[in-house]
Amino acid sequence: MISRDWTPNLTGGSLFAAEALRMDSYLIQVTGHDDHGDHAMLDVHLKTNGNTVPLGKAKGRKPRWAVRASEMSKKTFNPVRAIVDTMKVEPNPKKAMISLSLGDPTVFGNLPTNNEVTRAVKEVLDSGRCNGYAPSVGYQSCREAVAAFYTCPEAPLEAQDVILTSGCSQAIELALAVLANPGQNILVPRPGFSLYKTLALSMGIEVKLYNLLPEKAWEIDLKHLESLVDEKTACLIVNNPSNPCGSVFSKRHLQKILAVASRQCVPILADEIYGDMIRDGLVRLSQRILGPCTLVQGALERILHRTPPEFYHNTLSILKSNADLCYTALSAIPGLRPVRPAGAMYLMVEIQMEHFPEFENDVEFTERLISEQSVFCLPATCFEYPNFFRVVITVPEEMILEACSRIQEFCEMHYQGAEGAQDLECDK
Amino acid sequence: MISRDWTPNLTGGSLFAAEALRMDSYLIQVTGHDDHGDHAMLDVHLKTNGNTVPLGKAKGRKPRWAVRASEMSKKTFNPVRAIVDTMKVEPNPKKAMISLSLGDPTVFGNLPTNNEVTRAVKEVLDSGRCNGYAPSVGYQSCREAVAAFYTCPEAPLEAQDVILTSGCSQAIELALAVLANPGQNILVPRPGFSLYKTLALSMGIEVKLYNLLPEKAWEIDLKHLESLVDEKTACLIVNNPSNPCGSVFSKRHLQKILAVASRQCVPILADEIYGDMIRDGLVRLSQRILGPCTLVQGALERILHRTPPEFYHNTLSILKSNADLCYTALSAIPGLRPVRPAGAMYLMVEIQMEHFPEFENDVEFTERLISEQSVFCLPATCFEYPNFFRVVITVPEEMILEACSRIQEFCEMHYQGAEGAQDLECDK
Repeated sequence: MISRDWTPNLTGGSLFAAEALRMDSYLIQVTGHDDHGDHAMLDVHLKTNGNTVPLGKAKGRKPRWAVRASEMSKKTFNPVRAIVDTMKVEPNPKKAMISLSLGDPTVFGNLPTNNEVTRAVKEVLDSGRCNGYAPSVGYQSCREAVAAFYTCPEAPLEAQDVILTSGCSQAIELALAVLANPGQNILVPRPGFSLYKTLALSMGIEVKLYNLLPEKAWEIDLKHLESLVDEKTACLIVNNPSNPCGSVFSKRHLQKILAVASRQCVPILADEIYGDMIRDGLVRLSQRILGPCTLVQGALERILHRTPPEFYHNTLSILKSNADLCYTALSAIPGLRPVRPAGAMYLMVEIQMEHFPEFENDVEFTERLISEQSVFCLPATCFEYPNFFRVVITVPEEMILEACSRIQEFCEMHYQGAEGAQDLECDK
Repeated sequence: MISRDWTPNLTGGSLFAAEALRMDSYLIQVTGHDDHGDHAMLDVHLKTNGNTVPLGKAKGRKPRWAVRASEMSKKTFNPVRAIVDTMKVEPNPKKAMISLSLGDPTVFGNLPTNNEVTRAVKEVLDSGRCNGYAPSVGYQSCREAVAAFYTCPEAPLEAQDVILTSGCSQAIELALAVLANPGQNILVPRPGFSLYKTLALSMGIEVKLYNLLPEKAWEIDLKHLESLVDEKTACLIVNNPSNPCGSVFSKRHLQKILAVASRQCVPILADEIYGDMIRDGLVRLSQRILGPCTLVQGALERILHRTPPEFYHNTLSILKSNADLCYTALSAIPGLRPVRPAGAMYLMVEIQMEHFPEFENDVEFTERLISEQSVFCLPATCFEYPNFFRVVITVPEEMILEACSRIQEFCEMHYQGAEGAQDLECDK
């Protein structure tokens, strides 16, 4: 019999749901589950060599099968999935699909990673030195490399200040888990990255949304922010640059945010990048899983030091150029109001809904944009911000231009001026 | 300003604790924390351009800084770390250190992974096709490969039954999180892998330990197991083959375990390998982080299919040979009683404490083994099983033999027969 420990340790993704099912002819068999979501319950039947085992009793207790998903799993809710999965719109078969919805710069191959990154990981593979277990907080050498890369005289950073995680999502999870107890609340930007809410709700933490102001390049509405703070506020999430807005705060605005946090004594969770606070708690929490991908950890020092600066410059210049192109093209379209981005890889566009009386909201607008023009943008309801949509600007330039041209055609088709809206009624 | 989204996406380990600290001359500074563990509290001072900001008031509430680690982080406790970190013993400088403590087969280079595994990951790196975001449950193609590899007629497995995770530790975490609510309990083997308890306690789940019987090759004490079940029992963890015992259950014993689970209607969590139950809950929970290492996922199908069978056979035969050598050598030592292993990469050894009156317990015994013989074995108190120690058998053969010879020297030095123990008293 082969133990899991005898399989090559390289396999970072572990194999689930296998051995128990292979135990010859006896198995726990799931025969179905209802679709009532919150009250899903499984009927589980046990077979031993083909015979159903009668369910017995013990100690006066009457056991029965009632395997329910935990409260935590029921509270885990991904709004993007919930909205996108119910859209179910077919694109226009006459037009090739252009998806501007997923914030993943690798999809189209126009923004490949640098060869130095690939070489660094290959070197680690060949060395065989990172195929085993690393400390849960990451290799010491890797933490040192990160600290050396990010330290500055005003805020010296040491290896022990750095905790490596499996992606930014786990970093956010750790930061929330160390700061907040169930029943406390956190302050989250609206519009904002949906994972904050998904994680907080699954942990029983309340989410209070503070407003970003599109007319001020998505700066924080500081009065609104401050009005939300109460005794149970565990932290303030500042996401800068912003997903989905692509905005970047000025130094002056950051100082004002810090002043609010200081007055209210609320710690800041700076997006995936969390400060030096509550270190012991983070180390303990990191031990709940056994640490992030060792191959990447092993390669990280070389990646940080040897990736040529031109790689970053080129990537940034492509993103800036795409952002400008997209902003200019969408600005010219009646009924749309893009907000100029300054960072990240996103651009938010307001839909002046009064000019599109056919559509009830941003979800309907983006659905029809798919079915008529085969262009997929995320409705900003996904980010708690109705009547906007988000455009991802990492796609190739010609694709951005084609998409903008189709969005223009779509808007011209459906746009109604102040009087035009009445005309529509008269025409019918 | 560079967004996190503009860094190469390959960097699976995210960078923590950086940007907030780089905001020019204003920073949240941690000036220290006390060492009282459970009540640790940080003094946080805010500086803006060198001037300390006075802490103000708002709405009658009197804010003050009181950033405490969460209850969850306080409840996160790793017994191995707690025991090992307090051992602080120096090895004998005259003898090279031999560590038989860490269950990591890659440490000594005697069990390298197969070249096919390395090649598979390199191919994925070169293709660039796995540098972006995968679904939180893993790539569909990878889930299909795993299902095809593990399916069998008696228990057909499909892609949707497979959820990929960042290592086995996250698989266990997901399985526990989907099955148990705070306040419920789980049944865990003693001796057993310490992570079950670490995870459960951090989630507010009670742990009930059922006994394994060394005299029966570590079979489960089924009566004891059944006596522990109550209305709040969420699941039974069956770890087979066992860490730390290296034992493998017979088919007959597995059937008896299933009969108990059936009678008591308690679902089984089969080590890292969890069954087909509560699928929706698992998918939702998997969305809390954005999925495991994409490079390994991309390579997994090739790893599963092209790794030559000789690789597994060779590895197993080395482990078996080491296990036999180690068992034979330790069996001949007065005062020790090894239990023969049949799987995994561990061997448990009973210390007949009555013959070692100098030592109060297994921790003291293993400490002195380090300071006198420079051999490090984990005291089984780490696994809730005092008066045993665990030997890892993945080290090179000559190292095993040398370690066993030193353990023998150590035991002969300290062993006291029934009368000898009295002699010791008389001599003093």
